[in-house]
Amino acid sequence: MASRKILLDESEIPTHWYNIVADMPNKPLPPLHPGTQQPVGPEDLAPLFPMELIKQEVTQERWVEIPDEVRNLYSIWRPTPMYRALGLEKALNTKCKIYYKYEGTSPAGSHKPNTAIPQAYYNAKEGVKKISTETGAGQWGSALSFACSLFNIDCEVYMVKVSYDGKPYRKIMMNTWGSKVHPSPTNLTNAGRQILAQDPNSPGSLGIAISEAVEVAAMNEDTKYALGSVLNHVLMHQTIIGLEAMKQMEKAGDYPDIIVAPFGGGSNFAGITFPFLQNNLTGGPQTRAVAVEPTSCPKLTRGVFRYDFGDTVGMTPLIPMYTLGHNFIPSPIHAGGLRYHGAGAIISQLLKDGLIEADAINQNECFEAGILFSKTEGIIPAPEATHAIAEVIRQVKQAEKEGVSKTILFNLCGHGNFDLGSYEQYLAGKLVDFEVTQEQIDASLAELNTPTI
Amino acid sequence: MASRKILLDESEIPTHWYNIVADMPNKPLPPLHPGTQQPVGPEDLAPLFPMELIKQEVTQERWVEIPDEVRNLYSIWRPTPMYRALGLEKALNTKCKIYYKYEGTSPAGSHKPNTAIPQAYYNAKEGVKKISTETGAGQWGSALSFACSLFNIDCEVYMVKVSYDGKPYRKIMMNTWGSKVHPSPTNLTNAGRQILAQDPNSPGSLGIAISEAVEVAAMNEDTKYALGSVLNHVLMHQTIIGLEAMKQMEKAGDYPDIIVAPFGGGSNFAGITFPFLQNNLTGGPQTRAVAVEPTSCPKLTRGVFRYDFGDTVGMTPLIPMYTLGHNFIPSPIHAGGLRYHGAGAIISQLLKDGLIEADAINQNECFEAGILFSKTEGIIPAPEATHAIAEVIRQVKQAEKEGVSKTILFNLCGHGNFDLGSYEQYLAGKLVDFEVTQEQIDASLAELNTPTI
Repeated sequence: MASRKILLDESEIPTHWYNIVADMPNKPLPPLHPGTQQPVGPEDLAPLFPMELIKQEVTQERWVEIPDEVRNLYSIWRPTPMYRALGLEKALNTKCKIYYKYEGTSPAGSHKPNTAIPQAYYNAKEGVKKISTETGAGQWGSALSFACSLFNIDCEVYMVKVSYDGKPYRKIMMNTWGSKVHPSPTNLTNAGRQILAQDPNSPGSLGIAISEAVEVAAMNEDTKYALGSVLNHVLMHQTIIGLEAMKQMEKAGDYPDIIVAPFGGGSNFAGITFPFLQNNLTGGPQTRAVAVEPTSCPKLTRGVFRYDFGDTVGMTPLIPMYTLGHNFIPSPIHAGGLRYHGAGAIISQLLKDGLIEADAINQNECFEAGILFSKTEGIIPAPEATHAIAEVIRQVKQAEKEGVSKTILFNLCGHGNFDLGSYEQYLAGKLVDFEVTQEQIDASLAELNTPTI
Repeated sequence: MASRKILLDESEIPTHWYNIVADMPNKPLPPLHPGTQQPVGPEDLAPLFPMELIKQEVTQERWVEIPDEVRNLYSIWRPTPMYRALGLEKALNTKCKIYYKYEGTSPAGSHKPNTAIPQAYYNAKEGVKKISTETGAGQWGSALSFACSLFNIDCEVYMVKVSYDGKPYRKIMMNTWGSKVHPSPTNLTNAGRQILAQDPNSPGSLGIAISEAVEVAAMNEDTKYALGSVLNHVLMHQTIIGLEAMKQMEKAGDYPDIIVAPFGGGSNFAGITFPFLQNNLTGGPQTRAVAVEPTSCPKLTRGVFRYDFGDTVGMTPLIPMYTLGHNFIPSPIHAGGLRYHGAGAIISQLLKDGLIEADAINQNECFEAGILFSKTEGIIPAPEATHAIAEVIRQVKQAEKEGVSKTILFNLCGHGNFDLGSYEQYLAGKLVDFEVTQEQIDASLAELNTPTI
């Protein structure tokens, strides 16, 4: 029988993460201190992060060793399976070969624990007793709660209020792992009080929640902060996905012409593509890497490359990013993990240098792809993941039009168990596509007084 | 590093299911036709099931070959991982070794697809275009929807109304795979109308939903019926769990002294224990097999062994079962999959012959165990699965008291992603333990006019 799954043994969990910075022709620009506009140093970041993660954030080393304890905890759900999408290929009636790496087998249901586990580990090793963080739809908050419970670290999550109210199961999941969850904006922080003073009914946003979580860490000696995407060390931790995928493609006797991944802050995309991009950058076999964002939050396809804040209130360092402006509030699409105004420094540099590609897709096209995938492959994808599937279908159609056969790999970053409300809306024909006008983008960018590049 | 996971390769998916009937010292008694009280023949079952499944229901063969197409679809999520519960062992401070087989990696989130896939396959092979079924909490309905979508069979699910209203995500999951879902009792069947005439506000029950689904299949030429537990062929399909577990225990260089599984209709328990019980029955290494039921639905520990109907209205054949009476309505505990009045013929015979054991546990003890497991092993278990964990903890305490070390294996039959409302109630201290009085049981059994054994 044709094999639909390519598995690795526990012993094949990679021993090192891959740091793409070592191979980039143009290194990412440094983050700047918002006051001095000078590059931030380790001492600026020390209130927020343990020293080992700060070192990883700036390292130029190509390979960073994964501690044994982290590999051991990875083995709760890693190596993750890779699939040949035989059912989807048949439904699309294509000669293209489609593979996907499935990250939904983690206890939190997405790829986020790949970085939550090492972040909790390094914090625990340096004696940290408490970590604050933000979460939008709840995937990152769940992942960090899961990781902190394994290390006996207290975890406090600022969850965007509209998600807190609309996704109670994600909140309870975090509670079950022992975390405290607050609907953001709260009265517990200056940032939250400032927002509430302007709008007592604020539904919250990821940018606001980041402001709150960062403030809590900055103001409390015993508390550090953790971020689930954007930063260099986070992207590096996620390369475990692509490193496993390379071994699995090798076992399949194949190599991808195109790799596709959804794009929010970049960790999912970086995770699967960077190990393959190393070959691109060092004269090996070439692959197109396509990041897929929602049309309602098009920083890669319609944003500008300049310094901007990672949060709404302006507490983080200034990051060189493709951005829509940190005050840009994306429409309430269901792929909450993709509703972020900017991309991280590494991704932005790669995009600027033409080393990766980007595309934007509306949510109805994505959910249509998600339903087809559910019925042919059996797994119901998270709304974020449906963006990759929709793009794969676009690529397949293009290949058919050109009369060529392509090998396509994509990252199925999580399951949709907590997102079935959005499928209900799609099935009822009630899902709205949101368009962003150029005026909206211009207005948001006009508010920026951050350094240009 | 200590290995916490024992994996199998796709090629190690078993090629045959194990039929314990071949090795039972006393064979299970035959089901009886409710009218004639004579053993039912294949022709009586033909309106409900495809012929291949009827043959499997009565076969005496020890090994039944798994079709290639079924094995191929099994490989979407099988082989499932086995874990050594290092975190739980540490928390319990025990020298006992605890292993668990994790069935929550299937797209439907439980072990139920193990039988849904072959049932859909044999129906498709015989040209069936539509299958009707019932579901309580939604695990079986989800599994059959998943399987039917892969075979392009229409699936119609009668879902207990109280679950339909309270677990909308399970319903949407079935819709996403293309199924129609009705809140039972409905006005679509005589059985439903009969119940609604007595009680227009009936919350429904599994027994009522079975009556409706069976009626639809019996009345429509193009429709067959599928059941997710109790029947011989269903239990046999689930032995894939235990057959994989045997290989994994061998790889771990260990063998279980005790195997524990939750008990609803028996498929979960049979799945993991029967392959090991073969050794018990044929002079091999001996294992204690412990079935765990909720105290609120104690058919194994407090029921009687006699013929009874599988449904409420009395449309199914009479099955020799440990039963609380088919009119017994269990209290609304959160482990919906364990709220069934009887056990199947094989399990009942094994219990009667003293070849398996049973225990009953209240839901607060189960959820306490579930929380400990979530925090130490990282996986949030389904309420059904928490019964096994609570029993494992009881067995560990007993072993410690006796000063012995035991090797314990249990079946973690599913994740709790759709059951987080029950965790919320537990964490808020609002979960109620339901006791069943002897008067309740006596009253329910007094209504039976079915044959005694």
